[in-house]
Amino acid sequence: MIDLLICYDVKTETEGGRRRLRRVAKICVAHGQRVQNSVFEVSVTDVQLLQMREKLLNAMDVTEDSIRLYRLRQPREKFVEAHGVDKYLDFNEPLIL
Amino acid sequence: MIDLLICYDVKTETEGGRRRLRRVAKICVAHGQRVQNSVFEVSVTDVQLLQMREKLLNAMDVTEDSIRLYRLRQPREKFVEAHGVDKYLDFNEPLIL
Repeated sequence: MIDLLICYDVKTETEGGRRRLRRVAKICVAHGQRVQNSVFEVSVTDVQLLQMREKLLNAMDVTEDSIRLYRLRQPREKFVEAHGVDKYLDFNEPLIL
Repeated sequence: MIDLLICYDVKTETEGGRRRLRRVAKICVAHGQRVQNSVFEVSVTDVQLLQMREKLLNAMDVTEDSIRLYRLRQPREKFVEAHGVDKYLDFNEPLIL
């Protein structure tokens, strides 16, 4: 699996921008989770990456928005550090309720 | 040098949020560049990372905002992919004007 960080930059002052963010979020969340309002951590296969990239390019406005995909290092927990409000849930760990 | 991606999540609907984003941007841009409105790529030494982290924690509101630091893989250009509006400038390459 390829671990990716996806950062989506879109102006949310307009209804169009908010709609595109919802679309992008839906595409990303299918393969991972939303860690910030417009930042996502996903795990995909090569084929899923091709499909996801195509969907993202269709959902965004390439003349207005910016999307950046970063391949993450493993093990994840060693290379990520979070401060403040943290939305990340580790689905590989047992969930304690 | 440590290459980091810094994602800052802050509500910019309030003047306080916008002020914190300006402060965070100033801290990050001292060591790199702004690639999206609230996403930064920086290169720091171990000591600079300690200082920068402390400044970021002081600048943000930990009860409202979220900040995430990801260590980037090298070579950078192999692990990053950008679509749409791209603000990144490679300062290691000759600048053609």
